[in-house]
Amino acid sequence: MKVLVINSGSSSLKYRLIEMDNESVLAKGVADRIGIGNSSLKHSGKKDAVIEKDMADHSQAIKLVLSALTNPEYGVISSVSEIAAVGHRVVAGGEQFTQSALIGDKEMREFRDLVELAPLHMPACLTGIEACMEVMPDIPHVAVFDTSFHSTMPEVAKLYGIDYGDYKSLKIRRYGAHGISHQFISQEAAKIMGRKNFNLIVCHLGNGASLSAVKDGKCVETTMGFTPLEGLIMGTRCGDIDPTVVQFLCNKKGWDVNRAISYLNKECGVKGISGVSSDFRDLIAAENEGNERARLAIDMFAYKVKKYIGSYAAVMNGVDMIVFTAGIGEHTPEVREKVLSGMEYLGIEFDNDANYNAKGDIIKLSKDTSKVGVYVIPTNEELVIARETVAVVSAK
Amino acid sequence: MKVLVINSGSSSLKYRLIEMDNESVLAKGVADRIGIGNSSLKHSGKKDAVIEKDMADHSQAIKLVLSALTNPEYGVISSVSEIAAVGHRVVAGGEQFTQSALIGDKEMREFRDLVELAPLHMPACLTGIEACMEVMPDIPHVAVFDTSFHSTMPEVAKLYGIDYGDYKSLKIRRYGAHGISHQFISQEAAKIMGRKNFNLIVCHLGNGASLSAVKDGKCVETTMGFTPLEGLIMGTRCGDIDPTVVQFLCNKKGWDVNRAISYLNKECGVKGISGVSSDFRDLIAAENEGNERARLAIDMFAYKVKKYIGSYAAVMNGVDMIVFTAGIGEHTPEVREKVLSGMEYLGIEFDNDANYNAKGDIIKLSKDTSKVGVYVIPTNEELVIARETVAVVSAK
Repeated sequence: MKVLVINSGSSSLKYRLIEMDNESVLAKGVADRIGIGNSSLKHSGKKDAVIEKDMADHSQAIKLVLSALTNPEYGVISSVSEIAAVGHRVVAGGEQFTQSALIGDKEMREFRDLVELAPLHMPACLTGIEACMEVMPDIPHVAVFDTSFHSTMPEVAKLYGIDYGDYKSLKIRRYGAHGISHQFISQEAAKIMGRKNFNLIVCHLGNGASLSAVKDGKCVETTMGFTPLEGLIMGTRCGDIDPTVVQFLCNKKGWDVNRAISYLNKECGVKGISGVSSDFRDLIAAENEGNERARLAIDMFAYKVKKYIGSYAAVMNGVDMIVFTAGIGEHTPEVREKVLSGMEYLGIEFDNDANYNAKGDIIKLSKDTSKVGVYVIPTNEELVIARETVAVVSAK
Repeated sequence: MKVLVINSGSSSLKYRLIEMDNESVLAKGVADRIGIGNSSLKHSGKKDAVIEKDMADHSQAIKLVLSALTNPEYGVISSVSEIAAVGHRVVAGGEQFTQSALIGDKEMREFRDLVELAPLHMPACLTGIEACMEVMPDIPHVAVFDTSFHSTMPEVAKLYGIDYGDYKSLKIRRYGAHGISHQFISQEAAKIMGRKNFNLIVCHLGNGASLSAVKDGKCVETTMGFTPLEGLIMGTRCGDIDPTVVQFLCNKKGWDVNRAISYLNKECGVKGISGVSSDFRDLIAAENEGNERARLAIDMFAYKVKKYIGSYAAVMNGVDMIVFTAGIGEHTPEVREKVLSGMEYLGIEFDNDANYNAKGDIIKLSKDTSKVGVYVIPTNEELVIARETVAVVSAK
């Protein structure tokens, strides 16, 4: 059974075709600059190919993807009918979507109501789904939500200290994000531990970054909140901040509240602190050249991760395993070293030689005598989306 | 040497006269409803007295206080000239006031620039200082800041993930509050431990509430931020929240940003969650009668304290002592039980029998075998203000 996984951005469409009989990737690629000119499709299938062609919208993009997948030279299937189902990544599932769902008219209407929970991400996501359903009307489409994994959080973790009536009517609460990745890592970690009862902390550290606390496979806490702005310091997002700062910025700069929140999303984070870049490769290079503000940005990022690890250890009464994943988590030993240094109180014995030198997909960063296992595990969100898609389609 | 300690609110003026030779309280009291009618002075000196008299402003209030202190029947001094110095509590010291300071014209000008950092508290504070200096022009007046104790925080703790230029020009950073109380508890905790090197977590839990992490006597972290709105859930303040909620409230309710921040300060917290009260005595009573939202509010409050204890243990690489103080911290064993249950991973052995039944000023809540000492210590902010006042006046 072949599943096509789709991840739509505002001007991009990422795809992966997976043969679920053996979970192998048949083809993958990305359509870039959709609707903004100079668009192109980077495809990797039987061969690699770059197709430079104008794509005015997501509908044209998905048509080009399907033509690449069936291309005699670099495609991997002979007909679109070989695709059994399409799985879509959906950023916000609100309170109602606690599980992956088959997409029909009712679901599309409900998704539109959820746009205000993720105004930066949801419109592109819905555009992508609509285009795919239009081009592939006879194939089941499944929504896999970035929030579902966090739906098991207890009330004390998911509610804010606001008026209870406003929570009920306006649905203002912690939803979290990156749930698809946290779910994948939790399953992989459970395999390594070889048991169902465990206290796990997942550090998904990318340009967007979040931690989750996972007890016995279920999420009990996460750092992102009502939107992906809360929690860790990120590439350009401020993370946790006194809400009074929003008011102060408006009054001092003559901004309205939308401008202030846009600033906190797009002009802050490690980029704002360092003045260098939102990319950790640039930051590490600058730190190594003696740039003090790059050093400060990395230190602040790592410090927040450390604070949340401590917090989540308290929530679960201890921790058995800590996993680093995503771009920074998988590829930046400097950050992992700053996070894990001085954590002996938890029983962590950190192997910094392995941190810098060990090779492989899954890397163990803790010594064999460590009470807490510390690992790098590469995330695979597309595989989770494909697995969920199979599960939903099979349960029909 | 007698020191008069003054704590001014918008319509109140609290005072305490302390004989610093033996740190004994000679008299104390509060002038209430200043400028709003039906004002009265509750005085406790040689005798208790309630003086019902109209006080149109803080100047009239301090005159009434001095007349009470020198009253032949219930006063404790024969002349105002016996007061050697006046110590004032000042909520916000900004970046410049990292230590207590003698108040002159220059300082008053600088205080006025700090009003925007604590707009709810600073105006009353300055009104009180001005009134006292006008009535007692020949006595030294000393400002003791609620932020000074936190000035030792490292950059990673005090800076937010915002544009560095905006931090430098607008001074947007974590300042904290309740520093006078955190400082007092740190000194008392050091006496109990009998050493200078320690990792301490102070839980100042009152209607306003904050935690601090204190390493070797110096503050390294605190929960309140740019203003006292950040951090724990409080009586009516929301504490930590996704800043996007400010925007969402404005857009949904048609509010401007000032209205939204006022809501988060005054209509949220345990009062907003429970719909019952901001007072924990009412909440505990309601919980005992089966009120689920009162239970939720108390649980959420305790859960946030627990999360920060975990976070601060990580920051300091372990904890030697945890102290509870202030109204809720000293008098609400139900909250302490919820915070301290399930914290064995830190080596806490919690004595819940002592928690509910032990008597005395200082109460030990941990078993003798516990790796972490847990105590209740009553705070005494007035004594710190008086001690600081003596130190500043003596150093002149």
